[in-house]
Amino acid sequence: MNNTITLNSRPVGKPQLSDFKFVEEEMPLLKDGEILLKTKFVSVDPYLRGRMSDAKSYVPPFELQKAMNSGVVAEVVESQNDQYKVGDFVTGSLDWKEFQTSSGKNLLKVDNSAAPLSNYLGVLGMTGLTAYFGLTEIGKPQKGETIVVSGAAGAVGSVVGQIAKIFGCRVVGIAGSKEKVEMLKTKFGFDAAINYNTTENMTKAISEACPDGVDIYFDNVGGTISDSVHANINRLGRIVVCGAISAYNDTSIPQGPRVEHFLIRKSALMQGFIVGNYAEQFPDGMKQLSQWLSEGKLISTETIVEGFKNIPQAFLDLFEGKNKGKMIVKI
Amino acid sequence: MNNTITLNSRPVGKPQLSDFKFVEEEMPLLKDGEILLKTKFVSVDPYLRGRMSDAKSYVPPFELQKAMNSGVVAEVVESQNDQYKVGDFVTGSLDWKEFQTSSGKNLLKVDNSAAPLSNYLGVLGMTGLTAYFGLTEIGKPQKGETIVVSGAAGAVGSVVGQIAKIFGCRVVGIAGSKEKVEMLKTKFGFDAAINYNTTENMTKAISEACPDGVDIYFDNVGGTISDSVHANINRLGRIVVCGAISAYNDTSIPQGPRVEHFLIRKSALMQGFIVGNYAEQFPDGMKQLSQWLSEGKLISTETIVEGFKNIPQAFLDLFEGKNKGKMIVKI
Repeated sequence: MNNTITLNSRPVGKPQLSDFKFVEEEMPLLKDGEILLKTKFVSVDPYLRGRMSDAKSYVPPFELQKAMNSGVVAEVVESQNDQYKVGDFVTGSLDWKEFQTSSGKNLLKVDNSAAPLSNYLGVLGMTGLTAYFGLTEIGKPQKGETIVVSGAAGAVGSVVGQIAKIFGCRVVGIAGSKEKVEMLKTKFGFDAAINYNTTENMTKAISEACPDGVDIYFDNVGGTISDSVHANINRLGRIVVCGAISAYNDTSIPQGPRVEHFLIRKSALMQGFIVGNYAEQFPDGMKQLSQWLSEGKLISTETIVEGFKNIPQAFLDLFEGKNKGKMIVKI
Repeated sequence: MNNTITLNSRPVGKPQLSDFKFVEEEMPLLKDGEILLKTKFVSVDPYLRGRMSDAKSYVPPFELQKAMNSGVVAEVVESQNDQYKVGDFVTGSLDWKEFQTSSGKNLLKVDNSAAPLSNYLGVLGMTGLTAYFGLTEIGKPQKGETIVVSGAAGAVGSVVGQIAKIFGCRVVGIAGSKEKVEMLKTKFGFDAAINYNTTENMTKAISEACPDGVDIYFDNVGGTISDSVHANINRLGRIVVCGAISAYNDTSIPQGPRVEHFLIRKSALMQGFIVGNYAEQFPDGMKQLSQWLSEGKLISTETIVEGFKNIPQAFLDLFEGKNKGKMIVKI
C-alpha cells in the first residue's frame, strides 16, 4: 500500500494536525509514457497555508480529501518514458505521497553529484530563486546600501542576506531567538541582527543597527516588525514584500498603520511578488546561485526532519519559527 | 505698507484661520541684482498642511511668525537684474506677500500670451507635472488598461484622468459630489465616476465600474476609499501614491487594513513620489502638457478665489472639497 497525506479540513486560524489525514491507497500502476517516483525530500513552506483556505489567490486552493502537494525531490524507480531512466532524480510540484506516477512534464532533472539533493528544494530551488529575484529585481541592491531582512533566519531570509553581502550591502537581520541572531552573524556574515522577542523598542533598535537608514527592506513577516522597519526607511527606499507569515493564520485582514504617508514622504516603493513572475529567468538564476554555492559565497542551511508521517508537524512548526533556514522532510 | 501672511501657530488636527496672521511690513527695498515682484496668483495646495507641522518631511516645515509660501505667479514691477525687465511674469516658490524682492534665481519666466497666467500654477505648473510624471513614470499606462483616480475632480486628479484618456485607458473617477461626478463625465471625458458620499458599498461600485479590474490606481486621498480600490486591483497592478488628503489633518498615524497580503497576492506595486524627483525632466513634461493643452486634448479647470486676504480660507476649503480642479487665489 501507498501512504498519502490529504487535506482533511480547511483550517480557521492556526492549522492543526487534524486538518491533515493519512490515507492508504493502492500502489499506482504505470501507464505508457509515465514514470514511477519515490519521494525522497518534501518541502514545507509558509505559502501552503494560503492554499489550505479556499480564498482566491495566485494559486488555486488545495481540494478537500485530495493529496496535499509542494516542492518535492523524488527518484525514478520505474520508467516507461524515454526521457527518464531508473535512478534519475527529479524535482517539481508533486503530491504528498510516498509513491506517485508522473508524465514527466513540469519536472526538472537534478544532479546529486553537483549538490546534495535537498538543496534543490532550498538554495537551488524556489527558495533560492525567490530570494534572488525578489532582491535583484525589486530591491536592486547597490554597493554600500543598507538592507534589513525580516524572517532572516528562515529559508528565504538567510539566502537574501547572503546575496546582499555579495552585492556589498550592510545587512541587518531580524529573527526570533538568541541562537538565530548568533547564527546570522557568525554563520551567514550579517553585519548585525536583532532578536524581536527580547527587544523592547524595535524602531530604535533598527535605527541603531542602521546608522545610514534603511535603503532596502526584504519583508518575510509583515505586522508590527515591519512597522518598525518602515519608520526607518530612506528616501527612494524599496520594500520587497515577499511574505507576511505573521498574518497567514489571521481570520480577518490585520490592521496597522496606513503606509501612504511614509511612502509619499520618502518616495518609497512597496512591491509584492511571487517567484513565478520570473519563471523565464529561472535558468539564469539557478546558474548564478549554483556558482555562488560552489564558490562558497553562499551557504545552504536546512532544518531536516525525518519521516513521511512528520510532514504535517514540520509544516506547523514553521509558524512557531522552529526552523533555521529551509524546512525539509526527508523520507 | 506691504501685506503679508505668516504662520501664527502650528495646527493640531484641522487648520484654523487663527493659525494664520496678517502682518503689515515696510515695502521691501531693491538691492543691486534684485527684482521687485507683485504677486498676481497664489496656489494653495493640500501638501502645505504638512509644512505647517514641524514633523520631518521632504520639505522643511514653515517657520512660526515667518511668511507662508507656495507656488506664485508674479509680475516684475522694478528690476535691477539684467535677466528680467519690468512687465515680465515669473513663477516659482514665493512668499505670501503682496510685494517681495528676489534675486531671480529659481524663478521661471512665463509667457502670458501662450496660456492664461493661472495655468502656470495648474496644468502647466507643479499640478500638471505631478499628474504627468506620477502617471507616466509609476503608473505606466497601456492602451486598454483601466485606471481609477481618487480625488478625481481635484487639481491633480482631473489632469491625471485626461492624460490617461490620451493613453487610451478606461478612466474611472472618484469624487465627493453629484456635481463633480457629472463634471468628470461630461467635461473631462471620464468613462465612469463614483460619488463616494452617496455610495454605500464602494468596493462593489468600483468593481461594477471596472469590469476588467483595476490596473492603475492614482491615489490622491488614501483612507477607506483606497481600501475599496485596493480590493479591486489586478495582477501586476500599480498604485501611484500621490496624496493622502484624508489623513493630512490626523493627529496620529491612521490605521487601516495592512496591504502586504494583497500586494503579494497580486504582485502589485505601491509607490510614493513627489514631483521634485523628476525635476530634470520638467522641461519635457511642460512641453508635452503645453502641446496637449494647445491641441485641446487637455482642459484646465481652476477654482479662482479673489483677494489676498482670502488665501487662508481658500487653503482651508481644500479640505472640504470646495475646489473643482486647481484652487488658485487671484490678487
